[in-house]
Amino acid sequence: MDPDALAKAFVEHYYRTFDTNRAGLGSLYQEGSMLTFEGAKTQGAQAIVAKLISLPFQQCQHQISTVDCQPSGPAGGMLVFVSGSLQLAGEQHSLKFSQMFHLMPTPQGSFYVLNDIFRLNYA
Amino acid sequence: MDPDALAKAFVEHYYRTFDTNRAGLGSLYQEGSMLTFEGAKTQGAQAIVAKLISLPFQQCQHQISTVDCQPSGPAGGMLVFVSGSLQLAGEQHSLKFSQMFHLMPTPQGSFYVLNDIFRLNYA
Repeated sequence: MDPDALAKAFVEHYYRTFDTNRAGLGSLYQEGSMLTFEGAKTQGAQAIVAKLISLPFQQCQHQISTVDCQPSGPAGGMLVFVSGSLQLAGEQHSLKFSQMFHLMPTPQGSFYVLNDIFRLNYA
Repeated sequence: MDPDALAKAFVEHYYRTFDTNRAGLGSLYQEGSMLTFEGAKTQGAQAIVAKLISLPFQQCQHQISTVDCQPSGPAGGMLVFVSGSLQLAGEQHSLKFSQMFHLMPTPQGSFYVLNDIFRLNYA
């Protein structure tokens, strides 16, 4: 699979899981993973999922606008940069966001999220 | 210097150089560096600077809103995620953007940009 297709597949999987079964995101992170969500840092798969579940909205739907990816160095990692919008249930307007993921290969031939940084795009 | 202060110092240096002497950005990239600017990929310091110089605006001023950083793995790299706005000379409104940099250490104890992804935040 070429890197762009892989990045797109990851992104689709990530947001589909976020929107339907947020707890299921835990398997995408590991102990050394870091999330910075709107400036707040969280480390480790368990703490990251707890943070994502505790966000002050339940139902939501992500819409992806752009996905950019680049290889991140000799370790076989991949940087994925996403822009999109987030529709919260009951809200009229959606929120634009930008998010980056640093994916690292696992011994099983899959990827996990080492770095995750999320920011809303304030107008 | 702690990572957050280092990231902030890099970001200030980067945009000051961009706004006053774009050709001077060349020293921040190396042969293996990649830039994805609005979806267009460029590789190598020389090609990246040529791309940045060729952008269809001359005078501009970047304003930084947020800087997030995380260590990017065992190789000593650092991920820096920036949001801000870009004011073009003669334009009334500024353009919001998001940009990420993957910084890698040099043998001289400095950093170079391995990965650079830039996107305007469309409203």
